[in-house]
Amino acid sequence: MSTSEKAGSGAPAQGGAGTGGSAQGNRKAPAARSAAGRKGSARGKAATDGPAMGQATAEGSAIGEAVAHDSAIGDRKAAPSGPAGGVSRRRLFGVAGAAGAVGLVGGGAAGAAATAAGHHDPVALTTVGSAHIPFEGARQAGIVQPAQARGHLVAFDLAPGADRRAAAALLRRWSDAVRSMTRADRPAAPAAYDDQVAYDAGPASLTVTFGFGRSFFGRTGLGSALPEALAPLPDFPGDHLDRTRSDGDLWVQIGADDALVAFHALRVLQKAARDTAAVRWQMNGFSRTPGATAHPMTGRNLMGQIDGTNNPKPTDPDFESRVFVPAHGSPAWMAGGSYAVVRRIRMLLDDWDHLPVARQEQVIGRRKSDGAPLSGGTETTPVDLAKFRPDGSLAIAGDAHIRVAAPASNSGAAMLRRSFSYHDGIGADGVPDAGLLFVAWQADPMRGFVPVQRKLDGADGLSRFLRHEASGLFAVPGGAGPGEYVGQRLLEG
Amino acid sequence: MSTSEKAGSGAPAQGGAGTGGSAQGNRKAPAARSAAGRKGSARGKAATDGPAMGQATAEGSAIGEAVAHDSAIGDRKAAPSGPAGGVSRRRLFGVAGAAGAVGLVGGGAAGAAATAAGHHDPVALTTVGSAHIPFEGARQAGIVQPAQARGHLVAFDLAPGADRRAAAALLRRWSDAVRSMTRADRPAAPAAYDDQVAYDAGPASLTVTFGFGRSFFGRTGLGSALPEALAPLPDFPGDHLDRTRSDGDLWVQIGADDALVAFHALRVLQKAARDTAAVRWQMNGFSRTPGATAHPMTGRNLMGQIDGTNNPKPTDPDFESRVFVPAHGSPAWMAGGSYAVVRRIRMLLDDWDHLPVARQEQVIGRRKSDGAPLSGGTETTPVDLAKFRPDGSLAIAGDAHIRVAAPASNSGAAMLRRSFSYHDGIGADGVPDAGLLFVAWQADPMRGFVPVQRKLDGADGLSRFLRHEASGLFAVPGGAGPGEYVGQRLLEG
Repeated sequence: MSTSEKAGSGAPAQGGAGTGGSAQGNRKAPAARSAAGRKGSARGKAATDGPAMGQATAEGSAIGEAVAHDSAIGDRKAAPSGPAGGVSRRRLFGVAGAAGAVGLVGGGAAGAAATAAGHHDPVALTTVGSAHIPFEGARQAGIVQPAQARGHLVAFDLAPGADRRAAAALLRRWSDAVRSMTRADRPAAPAAYDDQVAYDAGPASLTVTFGFGRSFFGRTGLGSALPEALAPLPDFPGDHLDRTRSDGDLWVQIGADDALVAFHALRVLQKAARDTAAVRWQMNGFSRTPGATAHPMTGRNLMGQIDGTNNPKPTDPDFESRVFVPAHGSPAWMAGGSYAVVRRIRMLLDDWDHLPVARQEQVIGRRKSDGAPLSGGTETTPVDLAKFRPDGSLAIAGDAHIRVAAPASNSGAAMLRRSFSYHDGIGADGVPDAGLLFVAWQADPMRGFVPVQRKLDGADGLSRFLRHEASGLFAVPGGAGPGEYVGQRLLEG
Repeated sequence: MSTSEKAGSGAPAQGGAGTGGSAQGNRKAPAARSAAGRKGSARGKAATDGPAMGQATAEGSAIGEAVAHDSAIGDRKAAPSGPAGGVSRRRLFGVAGAAGAVGLVGGGAAGAAATAAGHHDPVALTTVGSAHIPFEGARQAGIVQPAQARGHLVAFDLAPGADRRAAAALLRRWSDAVRSMTRADRPAAPAAYDDQVAYDAGPASLTVTFGFGRSFFGRTGLGSALPEALAPLPDFPGDHLDRTRSDGDLWVQIGADDALVAFHALRVLQKAARDTAAVRWQMNGFSRTPGATAHPMTGRNLMGQIDGTNNPKPTDPDFESRVFVPAHGSPAWMAGGSYAVVRRIRMLLDDWDHLPVARQEQVIGRRKSDGAPLSGGTETTPVDLAKFRPDGSLAIAGDAHIRVAAPASNSGAAMLRRSFSYHDGIGADGVPDAGLLFVAWQADPMRGFVPVQRKLDGADGLSRFLRHEASGLFAVPGGAGPGEYVGQRLLEG
């Protein structure tokens, strides 16, 4: 993934576009690699953001559109041999599968022409399995990459008597297991804890991200290393929190584009924790499957709303400082890390679905079909909060979600949201237990989630269709280098 | 897949290979179409079984390997210019899309050239979303096609007072909704009940299959139409059934290769049932994602075992008579239908994972890594139940699962298993609530599930690692033609 990393550019250290559509960094998928190479890697808003993004474009789009899992989408800057004209190449590439297909179907000269032109070949289906995201790096994986098709969130509590040494050994076992499971050439022979559920598949863009809850520090005698930013989240009046599904000593986020690969990783990590830590809670989520749409776009949540448009983008000058703890930040062991706010947000879908679409759009502030703000333009047009309609009313209502959540309404506070949808069935009352496994990343929750949620809780027209049922805040340290394990600087500091 | 259907061959009427890797029948995915045409059949065991399977190779492998979702599949014998024999009516309307698609590929010189040269071109990632499986046909979809990456099972009970007329109107609404949602050119404008969750994606091989439970007939005054085969399943001594998650007036099976597409379908059907029927129970499942492995092979279950090898194959002479009610069967309204046995089978994974792999293999009777029977050979080698090892012991143990379940041990009884895995989280005790949403199809449960389960329950070494927690038996009528709805012959008979 080093190709999309530019020294000093502010691009994140972990490669971002390896999931789904792009297979950069994958030694086992020559077809996909070449397709990605020709097209640049690509997803989401490449054409829009392209000119400013340089080499990091692929990541920018990947992150900006955190749940877009579409197919191969080119970027004019990233295409080595493309005409960088005014035509949106994204339009061509956005339907790259179709374009390539036409060439192939036409066969003969048409196919050859398409190949020579170089940017029409579709990304191969098999890249879903062979794509890999490196475990090692300055950042942990699973923050800037798009959310995978399947996600597991799980919190562990240390077993009675498990001390700092035991925790260090656990993080070592976990890191080694993840290092192995995320390799492009996953070992064919079963490793320790391996139930062979994913024996023939993957890594399918598997990422595993580790974090520490506030309670971890007291239990391991590391109170002096407790980050100030890990102060308990305030109580929000609208919360309906189930404490048994909140918090935890350790937090693990698993994502993969195959449910068996993700389940396998979950079980391997659970078994590796035996005698040291026990599962406190565990939740399952999903987002769009790679290739499920030919349209390059931000994903939708279970309200049907396009969700993630206004996420910070790596090309934003302050992206790094918003999302990651700086290299010389405090505490030192959190350098390159981030803080994850995790909320299980149930959507009251029956109530929501009873609203006419026009009313839903007013609640959100965006058009449902394409995500364009009601102040005009397309999905990516900046929201004009000051715009009035001819009748004198605000185009974006006073309690519209995007107004209340906007950085401009919150002293600039922002966070990188990378959520999964969840659906735990339909209850005996006919109501789906479904919504968002909200995961938000920031360098400091007091400049991210906390002020925004304070504002949303009550003032947001959307809030009466949501119920926050679980909550957690975790300190996610930087990534591990070769031979290291995640958290080593804390546990051996 | 009309082209893989041979008049009188016993091949099923619904195209089988359209899911995931193959995009036959998809008017919007020329890339996949051409790739499929060029690659010849490639899913599952096509290479192994090909010579014996003739035109039905693609389907045979797809079904025999029910959860194989690997790459490109076409059937080189299935080219329309080939000696396809008589064209049946159901080919024309049931799977017309498939014929058109293959025709385009194989029809011209370009197609022929590609067939000769192009074995290595990958199927496009975008086919995941664009692949569609026709709703209309002599059979309902979702029986012979491979299980999709995401599945929902849901049972409804009729509301008090809902009569035969109300049920007919519901089936009409449901059928029309599914007809629309499964179209290759899904409408861009939202239809009734549409929450737009899948607005930009799919159909992603969506299938929806409808069935009637025994209780349906009494409530609608259709007792005289109750099939004999719908007699209550016997109590099995090993069962631990939760009656609130068993049975039901109506049963719906949803599958799609994208979780948002599947969830959307579930919600559309739930909303269309409002005031007529309420959800009785609902379960979520999954199987391997298309493209997750580059190896064409049978899928694995959550025990890590390759599962589905011995399924009946459409090329078996008795496939049709085993799985489907014949055209002149009884009752007449079930012609072309099948009976679905649904079991939520929890796997006691911690107990299982404690067994050494060698012991697990004895319990199953197959090698874990590749599914080869312990009597020798490869996965598809017929099991030799009479084989002894040098030490005089049976190669396949007396209580091995594949021995006890074998048709030879059950007077020839067999069924087509098409299950999803499920995982509903890890409980407070650290135990995963996970296993199999077992769905088995047969023309008569008394010659399928019932005798086999009677044998397994107790005698099967695997049974102590399983717990049957829910159960249902449903009469699944034949498919609907243009303008018809599923169950019309029952409800208007």
